[in-house]
Amino acid sequence: MLNLKERALEMHRQSQGKLSVCSKVQLKDADDLSLAYSPGVAEPCKEIHADVNTVYDYTSKGNMVAVVSDGTAVLGLGNIGPEAALPVMEGKAVLFKNFAGVDAMPICIKHDDSPEKLIEVIRFLEPTFGGINLEDIAAPQCFIIEEMLQDTMNIPVFHDDQHGTAIVTLAGLFNALKLVNKKIEDVLVVANGAGAAGIAIIKLLMHLGVKDVIMCDTKGAIYEGRPTGMNPMKDTIAKTTNRSMKTGSLADCLVGADVFIGVSAAGAVTQDMVRSMNEDAIIFAMANPVPEIMPEDAIAAGAKIVGTGRSDFPNQVNNVLAFPGIFRGALDVRAKCINIDMKVAAAKAIAELIEPHELRADYVIPSPFDPRVAPNVAKAVATAAMATGVARITVDPKIIEEKTKLLATIGK
Amino acid sequence: MLNLKERALEMHRQSQGKLSVCSKVQLKDADDLSLAYSPGVAEPCKEIHADVNTVYDYTSKGNMVAVVSDGTAVLGLGNIGPEAALPVMEGKAVLFKNFAGVDAMPICIKHDDSPEKLIEVIRFLEPTFGGINLEDIAAPQCFIIEEMLQDTMNIPVFHDDQHGTAIVTLAGLFNALKLVNKKIEDVLVVANGAGAAGIAIIKLLMHLGVKDVIMCDTKGAIYEGRPTGMNPMKDTIAKTTNRSMKTGSLADCLVGADVFIGVSAAGAVTQDMVRSMNEDAIIFAMANPVPEIMPEDAIAAGAKIVGTGRSDFPNQVNNVLAFPGIFRGALDVRAKCINIDMKVAAAKAIAELIEPHELRADYVIPSPFDPRVAPNVAKAVATAAMATGVARITVDPKIIEEKTKLLATIGK
Repeated sequence: MLNLKERALEMHRQSQGKLSVCSKVQLKDADDLSLAYSPGVAEPCKEIHADVNTVYDYTSKGNMVAVVSDGTAVLGLGNIGPEAALPVMEGKAVLFKNFAGVDAMPICIKHDDSPEKLIEVIRFLEPTFGGINLEDIAAPQCFIIEEMLQDTMNIPVFHDDQHGTAIVTLAGLFNALKLVNKKIEDVLVVANGAGAAGIAIIKLLMHLGVKDVIMCDTKGAIYEGRPTGMNPMKDTIAKTTNRSMKTGSLADCLVGADVFIGVSAAGAVTQDMVRSMNEDAIIFAMANPVPEIMPEDAIAAGAKIVGTGRSDFPNQVNNVLAFPGIFRGALDVRAKCINIDMKVAAAKAIAELIEPHELRADYVIPSPFDPRVAPNVAKAVATAAMATGVARITVDPKIIEEKTKLLATIGK
Repeated sequence: MLNLKERALEMHRQSQGKLSVCSKVQLKDADDLSLAYSPGVAEPCKEIHADVNTVYDYTSKGNMVAVVSDGTAVLGLGNIGPEAALPVMEGKAVLFKNFAGVDAMPICIKHDDSPEKLIEVIRFLEPTFGGINLEDIAAPQCFIIEEMLQDTMNIPVFHDDQHGTAIVTLAGLFNALKLVNKKIEDVLVVANGAGAAGIAIIKLLMHLGVKDVIMCDTKGAIYEGRPTGMNPMKDTIAKTTNRSMKTGSLADCLVGADVFIGVSAAGAVTQDMVRSMNEDAIIFAMANPVPEIMPEDAIAAGAKIVGTGRSDFPNQVNNVLAFPGIFRGALDVRAKCINIDMKVAAAKAIAELIEPHELRADYVIPSPFDPRVAPNVAKAVATAAMATGVARITVDPKIIEEKTKLLATIGK
């Protein structure tokens, strides 16, 4: 029996990568050729030239997402470059297809330049793609890259490392708070790790009315005016979080906290720290592959609910619960962006799949293989897009849900 | 019965474009997920990071071509923009797949800038793609764009509007000259139209030893030092062609010519002009959709062999005879470029499919649906790549031919 490493290499080598481009139309004779290519193809060209919005009617753009990376922060491997990032982006594209019928194409970009260069290149891709999924781009550049792209492009731009993790964490938190009967506006949240995911989680929580959040990094609590280890994103975060200006280590901050959110490093949290937290502590320890604290240790120290990034523990925070359905919903209404209401709607759509009577400490997040997830997320995201005026067209959300069910092939 | 326009629009609308991205690997359970995505996917990432050449082993790059356009010269429609160019690029991708099993992805780029900007963007795509097919980019920018890209990229860059047409024309010319028993180094060739295809044809002919070529544009003969209507490419061409410094109109130049090559405009050639040509005149009148002279008129005026760009006349100069097999051969040996030897090899491979005893005035170019074409071109191109030292790996050309036969789905 080969081990995982050998099997993974063998699988990639045998298929020579994981993606191919397929034709949706038949081509069996000269007549087919005259429709799909010259001279017939001139007709959709002319229609699109007359009204550029019809590009969604006559081309694959409306279902095509670019999975863009520069390879600067790939998995836990760091800055390994665009070629070495390609297997991850192909894997992502496979998930897009299998979970929600979204066509996704990896675009790994070689650049040794500023974020501005990456922004410029991605902007040029707008005519071809209905959405941009940014992936594995290092913080803090990823924030400005996503923001500047979404400000200037008329298609959704979504950095999954930020929002995918944030949305699924939020879904888990919604259910966890129900279970311990605490209100989101009452809890003290401490987050460790000021990278892409950590910042995005904090922003979502603040948007939802969490009043007290303290964010830590390797230097401890982040507070306004901290003299070292800051960057523009941390400066911004420091202006609205940690209003009591707490200083000190993660251990200091966790005293009395209701929720810990870890997107940091293995072993960052001890049992003593958990013991110092408030009653019914909720812990999302998402460092990969080894969490900030192992679930059994956290529970033994008094934590009520623990989630991790791992598939071999309960409550897995897996991005695949979010991004396929989010893009499915956004694409189906030809959304111009993925705004915060759509993100919150996605988190609620994931959370609500677990009925109140089903909620348990080890079941606050549904399984990545639950076939109801992507359809429910797509429906909720499309509804939110239409409600907030960023959809180009109006579609019955029920139809989007049904379509997503049909398109998903996962497990089939 | 719907007409072509309505049928073409209906076909594009029904399928919402012509392309989808498919997974080459199955994904039915958590184990599959752990191989195709996290955590197993880290293994090919690490291998590629250690040796970037293994990107060809573990990803889809080696079979993936970007079909890149900025939409500045689409079909006969002109500068209609990148969105409106998308149906053509998707059609091209469908042909790549059906004729030679090449995965091709349209990348339509929005730029209002200099050729330098387009060059820069395309360069950034190198990690993802095994080759770049440039398409429908206006002359004279297309020349410098292709040249600068091929000079700096380590994957094949091929502007099909130049070389595709040139290679198929050359294939037809090889057979036509056999039929009229003239040698390529003895004939006077007059070409009309100094766009992408015209220039490329002239360059190939000069490379093959044609001594006497006169190129005309709307201002008549191009000659060194002509005071008006020149550009850098015409300046270069003028230095090696038309050594007798002929001036005057196309009609003036055609007197005594053996071969006319038209990539210009409907009706540019009259019967009188054909009558003024040498005996056994060969005419490639490739203006689309209406040729420079209709085949029956040319034959009536004494032409021996006539080719056009149209499928409803004999001897169709159709790029699909060239580009699928060319990229198939180049990709299969991981070629770094497509050099002139590979182009000439492709032309010969197309021409030689018509046996000497089969040659007729109305059969100097094989049918686009002849299933032997792409496999024979792929074999010849791969052989030429290996012989000229631009192949990264050595492969038995027979295997490439057989593989191409298996991959082609056209007509199946």
